[in-house]
Amino acid sequence: MLAGHAGRDERRVAFVVGLGLIGTSLALALRKAGWTVYGTDVDAGRAARAVELGAIEGPAALEPAEAGAAVAFVATPVRAIAGVARDLLERDATGTLVVSDVGGVKGEVVRRVDHPRFVGGHPMAGSEQEGPDGADGDLFAGATWVLTPTARTDARAFGLVREAVAAIGAEPVALDPARHDRLVALVSHVPHLAAANLMDLAADAAVEHGVLLRLAAGGFRDMTRIAAGDPAIWPDIFAENAPAVLAALDGLAGRLAEARRIVAEGDWPALVALLERAKVARRNLPPRAPVPDALVECRVPVLDRPGVLAEVTTVLGGLGVNIFDLEIAHSAEGERGVLVMAIDAGQADEARRALVERGYRPALRALR
Amino acid sequence: MLAGHAGRDERRVAFVVGLGLIGTSLALALRKAGWTVYGTDVDAGRAARAVELGAIEGPAALEPAEAGAAVAFVATPVRAIAGVARDLLERDATGTLVVSDVGGVKGEVVRRVDHPRFVGGHPMAGSEQEGPDGADGDLFAGATWVLTPTARTDARAFGLVREAVAAIGAEPVALDPARHDRLVALVSHVPHLAAANLMDLAADAAVEHGVLLRLAAGGFRDMTRIAAGDPAIWPDIFAENAPAVLAALDGLAGRLAEARRIVAEGDWPALVALLERAKVARRNLPPRAPVPDALVECRVPVLDRPGVLAEVTTVLGGLGVNIFDLEIAHSAEGERGVLVMAIDAGQADEARRALVERGYRPALRALR
Repeated sequence: MLAGHAGRDERRVAFVVGLGLIGTSLALALRKAGWTVYGTDVDAGRAARAVELGAIEGPAALEPAEAGAAVAFVATPVRAIAGVARDLLERDATGTLVVSDVGGVKGEVVRRVDHPRFVGGHPMAGSEQEGPDGADGDLFAGATWVLTPTARTDARAFGLVREAVAAIGAEPVALDPARHDRLVALVSHVPHLAAANLMDLAADAAVEHGVLLRLAAGGFRDMTRIAAGDPAIWPDIFAENAPAVLAALDGLAGRLAEARRIVAEGDWPALVALLERAKVARRNLPPRAPVPDALVECRVPVLDRPGVLAEVTTVLGGLGVNIFDLEIAHSAEGERGVLVMAIDAGQADEARRALVERGYRPALRALR
Repeated sequence: MLAGHAGRDERRVAFVVGLGLIGTSLALALRKAGWTVYGTDVDAGRAARAVELGAIEGPAALEPAEAGAAVAFVATPVRAIAGVARDLLERDATGTLVVSDVGGVKGEVVRRVDHPRFVGGHPMAGSEQEGPDGADGDLFAGATWVLTPTARTDARAFGLVREAVAAIGAEPVALDPARHDRLVALVSHVPHLAAANLMDLAADAAVEHGVLLRLAAGGFRDMTRIAAGDPAIWPDIFAENAPAVLAALDGLAGRLAEARRIVAEGDWPALVALLERAKVARRNLPPRAPVPDALVECRVPVLDRPGVLAEVTTVLGGLGVNIFDLEIAHSAEGERGVLVMAIDAGQADEARRALVERGYRPALRALR
């Protein structure tokens, strides 16, 4: 919807390293969106299976450069991501390969790779299935996909990853890596521990009370569904995000101690207040990113350096402002440029205020 | 499939007191099963709505006796159940009305009503919807429905409630009331508190971090779905089941403290062991009561007194043995009788062993 997108088609070649559930789902989704996708896995059997499933082109073991890939996504276990990403960037003779990842923790990976053409990412979608056979090309449709640009991130690299993510129907949102990690501890990592422990506690009691699991109704099933997922991915996640997980666990423990007090003392007004707050919050949980009634173009004159991109996008991302399109228009003088974004008209005033507060001078213009 | 069921049709009239989500769903389900259903509610608007929805016959304010009802189900808030049930039994001039309920806690209600024709019940199904408009005639299909006969329970009363529950596609299972209460604390009451607190913790953080709720993926949505339900039903449940809820909360707090140690110390083998146990347990969660390949008739000669019925059925219920049909055949002498049950052939040996241990002499015979 903005100008300047001509000629992008020839860049639509991607490479996926790691063909588990997420990597294979990403490959399937990109192919559905018209991209050409190559890929590899340390397990040759999984790579062959991904070829059979039509997720990637065969043969499976090409390099990104041989494949002509513009972007590589690292979908390995979390502890391996930084090494694989650095290796891909170092071996790339073209000097243009963009690398992203899909790991569930971002601070450590982003710090260790620390490269202008690396853009950390994390799709907020998953499944209790495992491996390429559990993959689903629609897994990311409507899901939020966090990107974590830093002061070093190259605008072209960010734009390309953003474009790939938007192409498969996900909603890119830029966040500071450390902030991402604190927030996913609350909505993913600690809920996972709670689900596993609720299931394990009930299973223990079921050893003595054979009937117990027959009493498990829909609510319990819903709460423990994620506990059926692959355990193998979690040690890396908890290792890399331990401080945020411990803080969120302490938050939950404090809440449960208060719930214990409420029940022990029969403080029913406090119980109803808690349940009422939770009910309102749950009913207001956005089902997916809002579809805007109208878009506006937000033009932000910026110094032409990478840090500006990260600051502007993460300020907007932190507010929940969705950026539907983005490009950098360079000025003739070379030192200055204009960051041009399409955003939801309903959020435009909030976005402008936040940017003005940081010293930017955004200009808004209606798009049709 | 057993003999002696002739002439039951004229008894298929039920009365439902309390036409909220569960009461109206039960009325709809019974009507679908061919029963005639009358009902009432302290809120005349809800009763009228239940008539409009086709859940009950109009006019809505009949008494069970006027309606010719054989069984009345009390589906009021938990604190009102005992009073309503006693009142129905005291006002019944026929001396035959059977009363059951659908409350989430059983010990206190069963103790307070304490009547041969009262059979406590609890369908293990629910919804985050509210009121008659949220009702669903298929809500109980395949759900476990706990019945809590006691030493005083009349066999005819138990048989009639069992028949009504089975008619709407639920799977009746008999349990001791106190045991029921301990088990639902683990699979319903404490999971509800966990869901509400996870949602409230995230909502608190979302005040500062506008984007947080956009990061909530499917797992978090599943875990917090029940937090969207009506808060009003919970004070009664926690008040009546406080000891079991506190014990289960302490169990969960202990597990989360151990999870904290695991993350703080990086004890990944312990983490994987926990997640692996939870995964196996979750994947083995029975989707619904098993459909038996074959049934056997289990005949248990018993002294013809009510306590025997409660003991035999709750021994089998506690093992997870489903009783597909049940009747009492009285002997000519009057003091002795035979409890005749249809059970899953695959569970017959286990059932026989448990009954022999208690001093019974069960005889098994294949049914076709």
